Amino acid sequence: MHRVTLYPYYISISSEDGSCLMDAIVEAGIPINAVCGGKGECGKCKVYVKESIPESTLQSLLKGDYSNLEFQLTCQTTVDSNIEVFIPPASVTEKMKVLTMCEDTDLGKIDPLLVKYHLELPPPTLDDNISDIERIKRELRNQNIKLSHVSLDRIQYLGKTLRDANWDITLSLSLRDSGYELTEIESGDTTVENLGLAVDLGTTTIAANLLDLNTGEVVSSAADYNKQMIHGEDVLTRIDFSGDAKGLRTMQGLAVKTINSLIGKLGKDPDKIRAMVIAGNTVMTHLLYGIYPRFIKLEPYIPVLNTMPLIYAKELGIRINNRAILHSLPSRAGYVGGDITADILATRMYEKSEISIMIDVGTNGEVVVGNKDWLVGCACSAGPAFEGGEVESGMRATTGAIEQIDINPGSGPDYKTIGNVAPVGICGSGLIDLLAELFTHNLIDRKGNLQQEVDPRRIRKGNEGAEYVVVEKSATGNSTDIVITEIDIQSIIRSKAAVYAATALLLRTVNMDFDDMDKIYIAGGFGNYIDLRKAILLGLLPDMSVDKFVFIGNGSLTGAKTVLLSRDMKEQAADINKKLTYVELSVNKDFFDEFSSASFIPHTDLEQFPSVKKIITVLKENCNTVINVP
Amino acid sequence: MHRVTLYPYYISISSEDGSCLMDAIVEAGIPINAVCGGKGECGKCKVYVKESIPESTLQSLLKGDYSNLEFQLTCQTTVDSNIEVFIPPASVTEKMKVLTMCEDTDLGKIDPLLVKYHLELPPPTLDDNISDIERIKRELRNQNIKLSHVSLDRIQYLGKTLRDANWDITLSLSLRDSGYELTEIESGDTTVENLGLAVDLGTTTIAANLLDLNTGEVVSSAADYNKQMIHGEDVLTRIDFSGDAKGLRTMQGLAVKTINSLIGKLGKDPDKIRAMVIAGNTVMTHLLYGIYPRFIKLEPYIPVLNTMPLIYAKELGIRINNRAILHSLPSRAGYVGGDITADILATRMYEKSEISIMIDVGTNGEVVVGNKDWLVGCACSAGPAFEGGEVESGMRATTGAIEQIDINPGSGPDYKTIGNVAPVGICGSGLIDLLAELFTHNLIDRKGNLQQEVDPRRIRKGNEGAEYVVVEKSATGNSTDIVITEIDIQSIIRSKAAVYAATALLLRTVNMDFDDMDKIYIAGGFGNYIDLRKAILLGLLPDMSVDKFVFIGNGSLTGAKTVLLSRDMKEQAADINKKLTYVELSVNKDFFDEFSSASFIPHTDLEQFPSVKKIITVLKENCNTVINVP
Repeated sequence: MHRVTLYPYYISISSEDGSCLMDAIVEAGIPINAVCGGKGECGKCKVYVKESIPESTLQSLLKGDYSNLEFQLTCQTTVDSNIEVFIPPASVTEKMKVLTMCEDTDLGKIDPLLVKYHLELPPPTLDDNISDIERIKRELRNQNIKLSHVSLDRIQYLGKTLRDANWDITLSLSLRDSGYELTEIESGDTTVENLGLAVDLGTTTIAANLLDLNTGEVVSSAADYNKQMIHGEDVLTRIDFSGDAKGLRTMQGLAVKTINSLIGKLGKDPDKIRAMVIAGNTVMTHLLYGIYPRFIKLEPYIPVLNTMPLIYAKELGIRINNRAILHSLPSRAGYVGGDITADILATRMYEKSEISIMIDVGTNGEVVVGNKDWLVGCACSAGPAFEGGEVESGMRATTGAIEQIDINPGSGPDYKTIGNVAPVGICGSGLIDLLAELFTHNLIDRKGNLQQEVDPRRIRKGNEGAEYVVVEKSATGNSTDIVITEIDIQSIIRSKAAVYAATALLLRTVNMDFDDMDKIYIAGGFGNYIDLRKAILLGLLPDMSVDKFVFIGNGSLTGAKTVLLSRDMKEQAADINKKLTYVELSVNKDFFDEFSSASFIPHTDLEQFPSVKKIITVLKENCNTVINVP
Repeated sequence: MHRVTLYPYYISISSEDGSCLMDAIVEAGIPINAVCGGKGECGKCKVYVKESIPESTLQSLLKGDYSNLEFQLTCQTTVDSNIEVFIPPASVTEKMKVLTMCEDTDLGKIDPLLVKYHLELPPPTLDDNISDIERIKRELRNQNIKLSHVSLDRIQYLGKTLRDANWDITLSLSLRDSGYELTEIESGDTTVENLGLAVDLGTTTIAANLLDLNTGEVVSSAADYNKQMIHGEDVLTRIDFSGDAKGLRTMQGLAVKTINSLIGKLGKDPDKIRAMVIAGNTVMTHLLYGIYPRFIKLEPYIPVLNTMPLIYAKELGIRINNRAILHSLPSRAGYVGGDITADILATRMYEKSEISIMIDVGTNGEVVVGNKDWLVGCACSAGPAFEGGEVESGMRATTGAIEQIDINPGSGPDYKTIGNVAPVGICGSGLIDLLAELFTHNLIDRKGNLQQEVDPRRIRKGNEGAEYVVVEKSATGNSTDIVITEIDIQSIIRSKAAVYAATALLLRTVNMDFDDMDKIYIAGGFGNYIDLRKAILLGLLPDMSVDKFVFIGNGSLTGAKTVLLSRDMKEQAADINKKLTYVELSVNKDFFDEFSSASFIPHTDLEQFPSVKKIITVLKENCNTVINVP
């Protein structure tokens, strides 16, 4: 396996020796331009490749200065060593929608929660007759490692293991509060393989990254819908389902089942995975640990605990190494969970002097504002629409999902799917595109009602009422029409209204305005390729200068990875949590008013959306003119 | 139940309301004088009784000044409240053999490893909306208690428990390294019941005390042979048996089975027992925890570890509360175990400026010399003879055991059994008495050979060679002759020789002599009533002024209890362990010489036993004269 680092995305992936670079880039989710289908004919997929790109060259490339540099075609390049690749904007498909990746994913020194140490111990003698464990401790002390715990089942045959290995061993040491726990002993030097698992435990989607804890590299990844979905789309219905011991056991089991199924897809021996970090909202975390969550739903919305005890992942039924310790990012309140702590870690807003705002758009919407001195957060229920849930043709941002859409008045929607295959549904970013396009083509009004007269061919009456046909079944990958119903559209508008209302209200709570914000970080499970201008047009995001937005992707997963790779980040997570003030919106009388005002495209108060107001003015003036969003 | 404290023994026992004080005193193992059989006729069982004896009065009583104090008969006294009782020497049978109990069993403040806290929490509100655990932590913090761990299975329904209990709860908090672990939550105030278990995990005998952790009182106790005995009498054969996984599992299971059977005899709901401390030698401790002990037997005699990890007792199969933490006194080396750390704790020699020596006579003999600045220890294999093992009619110091013997030349042995019932065997102290008496009556020579011509009626040929009939079956409780064989006698002589040789050699190692010792502490499982002068005559103990000897009884159990009742003592145990220097005798060339010299009664070098030399001189001069040991 070779490591392929992709700029300007700062993504590292593992590629098999001899694999095609284009495939590797597609695998990483970057829409490389491949008009000719990778035959080396169109010349559109040019990139700059080096084993290591010097920092000065990289800076020039990032500034768009490509002079004197030789580019090559990804489709004609074979990966046969670790490489660094710069992909110029021209080589990705036109509507590339990643705005910026999290600007700072550099952890500095990698200092993971699970470390491996290779030791060659001096054998005991009558003069040096300390116990086997003391001999190990002495050697570790020389390396400034404090061994504070041992797992009994790992030392029961330690004496034999040490002597069979001729005192040449590798220890797996897991971080605990007061030092390291000895969780595995292997013969010889096995330090080369050191794997850990980071998991984003989402209400709708669970995503996992297998990390090489020596390098920080993502070895493999997997994601799937949370199997708990069959018992309810949002956290409130999950809480209701867990009202008795049987229901709680079921929920706990389904979360574990999803995680175990993801582990099965990671391509490594689970016994070699020896550390795990999860980030999830408070309810999901309670359910994973089998903790009765009922009182999070009832006023005053109290969780049992915010910082989970350190346990072995096995204790929950998670099938990795028996002694792999499960760490969980701390929650702040019933509706501001470890996923938000993870988001804040991913943004690094907690380190800066400037004030920023972070908006996480998931099944729950969470908003945090602040800087290095203070942090204030709130939450709202957004529903699963942005993750493709509760929407007729919705799906996760995975192969076959329509992730971007343009509507041509003549030929109907032009779309792009993840993996460039026949479409089977629409993911979050596609839905945002779709609603914005429907609106700018006068196919829906500001309330989201379909305007059949504008396109009577595509707008029809379906089982659930009026619907717009995005792709006819003849062109889909599953022989089913891909549609969006009026009910879907209302649902998406409610979702975006909840997020916007929470954001606006939180800023009002701290007596601030969007203009006071240095950065607006956007996190969420709707895929990485959201079209910012369309999200603003819809009224999901505030109408700000686009250069203030930073898209951090799955901040929950990034935060979990960050903690897995760094003791310091684990401490930072605890500090963030202490610093974060929680504002309870559910009892805030203004929330419903804000929500109602935001339940329009983009908002009842157009003054809050000056750029959208201009578009609407044009639309009104000439209702047959189609406006292309700039 | 009332608490009865007995002076000058400093023993506290629990007695049922309305019980007879004489019975309570007999139960405590004190041989109260009851010539008339407890009918109130002989007037010999007079004691001084008060609800609380003032310190000044107690001091007078201890000095033998009984003026102006009213005494009463134990057999005519009913226990109907907590009382303190002073038993004057005249009221115990003539040959009372307890020399001194451990002089200082006062722990100061009881600060047990398991504490219970009753909390009445303020219910959460929107303004005070911290999590349930944080609410508990906040309240504990106000009481200066640091809650550092929670057991997951104890908090899964915490939210419901708290609300069902109307926020009125009692917490069980178990000490861990960095604070307390929340291990149980009960509704209302349950602080009145707080039970912990102290166990002496001996090679031959396992003894358990159930303690009230609020008062320090012993609620009940039980002891039995270690069921591992069926696979070998001493630690070496146990190690051999544990040479493979099956054998090790068997050994581990037998130790646990013995402990569980003792727990069943303690008369309390095992779920209410929430803390446990064991003290055992290194091999026994390894076996209990299922740790492969093989390398303790092989040079250089290395244990896997000396300080066991904190685990739940349940993890070993011990049937007390699921979350009761098992603490184990730390060992120092393969043959100086946690039992010796416990002995040292019981003696308090580690606190004193004067230099003392501690001799533990069990299946293994261990000797420690030192003071507050230094401690040096060694070990030897003594065999199970002093606990009644490997001796034809040997038995533990329990009901029916002959614990003292006088031989009358005319009528044969006079004896006293524990519980004053018909004899069924002889315990360690009885065997010491018996050998000394056989020797002073010329029935054995200095090598331990029976002299048939001296008493042809009682000395006969049995299945195992020559034997002396102590009690004929017509008078025993099990219709079997109680005998001692020549093989038994050799075995006891070897045991005492090993202990004496180790003691002498250790002193030589530190360039000291018995005369340098301020105190000689004697610990051991042979019962509390050893006749010191007879033990010296036999050559088991050095020929020193009797006022230097302090008998601490089962120091291992005392040490375990002490730790269970005191966090400070747990720390002291760790400190003692760090301070203790271990001397390996098994590779010491002088040991075999010392052992050979000591394999006589009392020793080949009579100069080391001047008081015994006098007796032997008389015996030699007149081989028909019987010398009564003074």
